[in-house]
Amino acid sequence: MRQKKFMLSEDQIPKQWYNIQADMPVKPQPMLNPQTREAVTQEDLESLFCAECAAQELNQTDRWIEIPEQVRQMYANYRCTPLVRAYGLEEALGTPAHIYFKNESVSPIGSHKLNSALAQAYYCKQEGVTNVTTETGAGQWGAALSYAAKIFGLEAAVYQVKISYEQKPYRKSIMQVFGALVTPSPSMSTRAGKDILTKMPNHQGSLGTAISEAVELARVTPGCKYTLGSVMNHVTLHQTVIGLEAEKQMEMTGEYPDVIIGCFGGGSNFGGITFPFMRHNFSGERNTRFVAAEPASCPKLTQGRFEYDFGDEAGYTPLLPMFTLGHDFQPSNIHAGGLRYHGAGTIVSQLLKDGYMEAVDIEQKESFEAGCLFARAEGIIPAPESCHAIAAAIREAKQCAQNNEARTILFCLSGHGLIDMAAYDQFLAGNIR
Amino acid sequence: MRQKKFMLSEDQIPKQWYNIQADMPVKPQPMLNPQTREAVTQEDLESLFCAECAAQELNQTDRWIEIPEQVRQMYANYRCTPLVRAYGLEEALGTPAHIYFKNESVSPIGSHKLNSALAQAYYCKQEGVTNVTTETGAGQWGAALSYAAKIFGLEAAVYQVKISYEQKPYRKSIMQVFGALVTPSPSMSTRAGKDILTKMPNHQGSLGTAISEAVELARVTPGCKYTLGSVMNHVTLHQTVIGLEAEKQMEMTGEYPDVIIGCFGGGSNFGGITFPFMRHNFSGERNTRFVAAEPASCPKLTQGRFEYDFGDEAGYTPLLPMFTLGHDFQPSNIHAGGLRYHGAGTIVSQLLKDGYMEAVDIEQKESFEAGCLFARAEGIIPAPESCHAIAAAIREAKQCAQNNEARTILFCLSGHGLIDMAAYDQFLAGNIR
Repeated sequence: MRQKKFMLSEDQIPKQWYNIQADMPVKPQPMLNPQTREAVTQEDLESLFCAECAAQELNQTDRWIEIPEQVRQMYANYRCTPLVRAYGLEEALGTPAHIYFKNESVSPIGSHKLNSALAQAYYCKQEGVTNVTTETGAGQWGAALSYAAKIFGLEAAVYQVKISYEQKPYRKSIMQVFGALVTPSPSMSTRAGKDILTKMPNHQGSLGTAISEAVELARVTPGCKYTLGSVMNHVTLHQTVIGLEAEKQMEMTGEYPDVIIGCFGGGSNFGGITFPFMRHNFSGERNTRFVAAEPASCPKLTQGRFEYDFGDEAGYTPLLPMFTLGHDFQPSNIHAGGLRYHGAGTIVSQLLKDGYMEAVDIEQKESFEAGCLFARAEGIIPAPESCHAIAAAIREAKQCAQNNEARTILFCLSGHGLIDMAAYDQFLAGNIR
Repeated sequence: MRQKKFMLSEDQIPKQWYNIQADMPVKPQPMLNPQTREAVTQEDLESLFCAECAAQELNQTDRWIEIPEQVRQMYANYRCTPLVRAYGLEEALGTPAHIYFKNESVSPIGSHKLNSALAQAYYCKQEGVTNVTTETGAGQWGAALSYAAKIFGLEAAVYQVKISYEQKPYRKSIMQVFGALVTPSPSMSTRAGKDILTKMPNHQGSLGTAISEAVELARVTPGCKYTLGSVMNHVTLHQTVIGLEAEKQMEMTGEYPDVIIGCFGGGSNFGGITFPFMRHNFSGERNTRFVAAEPASCPKLTQGRFEYDFGDEAGYTPLLPMFTLGHDFQPSNIHAGGLRYHGAGTIVSQLLKDGYMEAVDIEQKESFEAGCLFARAEGIIPAPESCHAIAAAIREAKQCAQNNEARTILFCLSGHGLIDMAAYDQFLAGNIR
């Protein structure tokens, strides 16, 4: 199980994020105010988000956005993350493909989510915000935000999807160690939660519902802003640090990826790894394939419709032009809680519509088979979300074996699964079919 | 929460382990065969351990032992581990002390245990062994051995202390993902287990009991060797990679530690971080203090007696000259399962007897207070075992604050606590007093 790890020195950690909006051949359509049906303005967004994030959200001109020095310092605590040649996995698959993964699981929180949490918490603090709210599924984002809030001296309130709160109690505990207030959603603490529970007392929660609650709390709490772990443009912007590092690290390998894969919930990890590479496709210089791996039980990219829809269940957010299953879609209780979201980011939706990327859907059983194979071959137990990217990578690698084709595959290992072992238990016991 | 991380390049990862036995002013007394009361020979040890580990165990002459190339390659997957200046913790304590920690939690298994698991599994494979057995407390060692066995193509059977098996189900699942057979101990699968359960049907297990079971299984299984996660000289030898790296990394800081601290179960993490530095005390070149932090509920170093005792509950092991609470001592069910052991390694015991090191005992509540403070200041949730080292470091740092003394403190963060969150839950709920 020899691996080969490619690392950057601290001064090679990117100093700017890549804003793909500046380069997109067709820009995303505007978000709309649901009352007026007019394009949402920065001012509108500032009622919810901190000003800098609101500005980044709508910025379609600046290709490079500077990473603040204090955020870069915090990045340096765990970045660069390793780019790893997965010899063990290649051998296990008997494939001529060269498989690389970008290992975001080494962050102290165990996933890529910290890349944006640090940025959002930093900007909030700079702007005099005292409290932040958010929602979380599996808890990866909630843990990251709790951590970042603690570091920058903010109070954090997190609504965690009820089924994940119960399935993954350790992530709740992590958030609490970092001082966050964690509430299972839907809850009786908000109007949105009460309305849902009145209609459906046994509602298991969803990201859409939790977003409604977190947004409402931010709206009614002075000094409080809402933060988000995926979907929005500025979140994906912060995650481009992944792809920018990976680009430099791939140069060190002497290879260039033929296909790049990320699991897909709202799009931030997928966009993070792919967007910096995609700009070379826009320019015609490269012809890389980009594959989003989504769960078969929540297939917005492969089976959803491109239309204006709310980002949350209660309809508090602007209308987003995106692939969606409908904002009242109730995803089944798969273990990859971070992928249980009805919609997709507007940038990614536009790119998919315009043929710059592909999507595949993965059954839960296939995802855990892939995760176990990867763990045994590479020694890292992946998060259930990341298992979807691995499964898609394995499909590609098997195809290479069939065609005897030595393609170069890169995927993002978005997080480790050490806190998701109950899910692996279920799989090993044969309870995931 | 600015940190400063000191890293070595891959070619600076040590090529040799440091064998402190070669330099000890007074060598450890021999282990004895309990029947004959004669010194245990390498041949005796080989009935249980692979030949190379047996040889290393008794080697009192070679100062440097080469790390096999394949083990070094596996080390390179996660080493060097960061040496971190803990500015956040210093600030939180208002201390003039400079606090550094060696972060072994970044290994894919989450603790330092992999350093020896890889070596032991490698040697077993080289010698034609097909199966390995071991015991584990909290599961850190068992997870590491399961991982290493999978990598080198061995079958692993792990006896996990029953109370930890129940308190920390995720570590059992991790071992199972890596293909190990995990049995809660005491079990009915061995004579030793049956005897204990017959006398005490509700026995919660202890490392001493689990060792008896693993040793017995190794003895009755053809092609099977026993492996151990701490206590023995060869295990601590493999862990010296920690201190050897730390020595080079401390050079990069321009400082030299005044005091070095490790938590203490059997001694491998403590010896791993301290022994390479201790050689400079032997030579008179330095006068560093070395502090072992043990749990108040299992205080072999601070309250045990130095005498010959068995390493396990049933009396299967040789007699070891060590500080012990008696091999039938029943430690209370603290969360730091890795520290629930009645004895101490023979090298460390001799060093303590001869005044080359100190020991302190830490109450469980103090350990978790320290762990939470550290998590909030440095962003890493420490394993309950590591919390003991942190607590001892905090005591030192507070003393520095009182005396306005800028001492340099180094401690080993032996592992992260992401799989021990149930323990933090108990602490946050006020149930640990």
